Amino acid sequence: MHTPQFTAESSSNGMVERDFTVGDVPGVLWSPASGADRAPLVLMGHGGGAHKKHPAMTGRAHLLVTGCGFHVAVIDAPGHGDRPRTAYDEQEIAALREAQAVGEPEGPIVVRYNARLAELAVPEWQAVLDALQALPEIGADGPVGYFGIAMGTAIGLPLVAAEPRITAAVLGLMWPDALIEKARQITVPIEFAVQWDDERIPREAGLALFDAFASTEKTLHANAGKHIDLPRFEADSAVRFLARHLGRAVTVPA
Amino acid sequence: MHTPQFTAESSSNGMVERDFTVGDVPGVLWSPASGADRAPLVLMGHGGGAHKKHPAMTGRAHLLVTGCGFHVAVIDAPGHGDRPRTAYDEQEIAALREAQAVGEPEGPIVVRYNARLAELAVPEWQAVLDALQALPEIGADGPVGYFGIAMGTAIGLPLVAAEPRITAAVLGLMWPDALIEKARQITVPIEFAVQWDDERIPREAGLALFDAFASTEKTLHANAGKHIDLPRFEADSAVRFLARHLGRAVTVPA
Repeated sequence: MHTPQFTAESSSNGMVERDFTVGDVPGVLWSPASGADRAPLVLMGHGGGAHKKHPAMTGRAHLLVTGCGFHVAVIDAPGHGDRPRTAYDEQEIAALREAQAVGEPEGPIVVRYNARLAELAVPEWQAVLDALQALPEIGADGPVGYFGIAMGTAIGLPLVAAEPRITAAVLGLMWPDALIEKARQITVPIEFAVQWDDERIPREAGLALFDAFASTEKTLHANAGKHIDLPRFEADSAVRFLARHLGRAVTVPA
Repeated sequence: MHTPQFTAESSSNGMVERDFTVGDVPGVLWSPASGADRAPLVLMGHGGGAHKKHPAMTGRAHLLVTGCGFHVAVIDAPGHGDRPRTAYDEQEIAALREAQAVGEPEGPIVVRYNARLAELAVPEWQAVLDALQALPEIGADGPVGYFGIAMGTAIGLPLVAAEPRITAAVLGLMWPDALIEKARQITVPIEFAVQWDDERIPREAGLALFDAFASTEKTLHANAGKHIDLPRFEADSAVRFLARHLGRAVTVPA
């Protein structure tokens, strides 16, 4: 099994940050600065239009690495971050901008574009997981979790359905259309976020996706507010959920 | 303003426990063993058929007192614990047992009985709060929270609607029928629990009650499982919610 190719390393704020590639896919691995003990791995998916080192990713990674001692990995989704956009990416992004400009629903475009990205990204994630598990500080038999909201769910939910190594996941804020059948195949513990007053994803659609998971342990967190208003404290909750299921103590704010 | 009449005091497990009465109402006040600094007060409501020192109450009190430094008070609801049952109590309890025995819905009986108990209990709680705020270690201007599930919500929700001194509340697991109008008057932060597979309270009924709160900050926690399966970790979550809104740091398990 091949390990990732590391291309840069730095350290700050209690975390070692290592850029890597697995094949053509660029990623980042954050690890505790304090040492090389074997520890659980959390895969995180970034949102649409963002990238592997978006502040939402570095902030959550910091909670997971310094609060729980986890390793955290993020890769750029196809067409995002350091990866080239194809003509198809440009076409779908233009369609999305056009819909937003004229006030038409963006759901149908996001659903089909993200479903296509998930088809590409799931095997990429599986190859990255193979490579990361070849590192001695992660290992092939340690616990693996997933944490991704919005496009991070559009890609992550099919990944969790396909990947028995992932044993707990935090997901949310996505239309059910392309995902509901895969949610029915998922049995691991799930924490799932919806926004109660989401102006893009109808309330019933969000609840239907939560309902579809076959997991005996699943928790819905629905907060008042619009799509963009997902509260900061849900990141702390996600960290506690992952700590509980991946088997680590946690130190995070209340 | 009259203070409560203290009738017994003991200390264990980091908590001072003081039994008290305010008029005819017996209660218990738990406080940090470590000292008499002024601290926020959490009122807790027990469930139907339980009492002020039920293990669910002492367990939650321990988290709030030793984890956050709060004072915690519980009173026996009318017809519960150390209080006499009236002929009306006996009649409603018999009706409930009969419905359970023959498999008829208990909702209509619980709703009407708990609504009557709430009419009696809300002014009792307000007198108890007056008395507790006359204690120097609580004070008249400190933060006050409420935490009660099931019958603790049937009584607590009207209390929160009536009582501007309560600035945050954890509620859940109750039919909306007698409560929805009062929920529409509530604007303080709310954390609200429903069980996704509740065999007694229909899912739509639980969601409708959450929807009715006028609070700009409200969070629904819906967990897979039946009415009785509310997970233990929701108590930890409630403690963190109250710590956040009443202004205290917290130390609780992940």
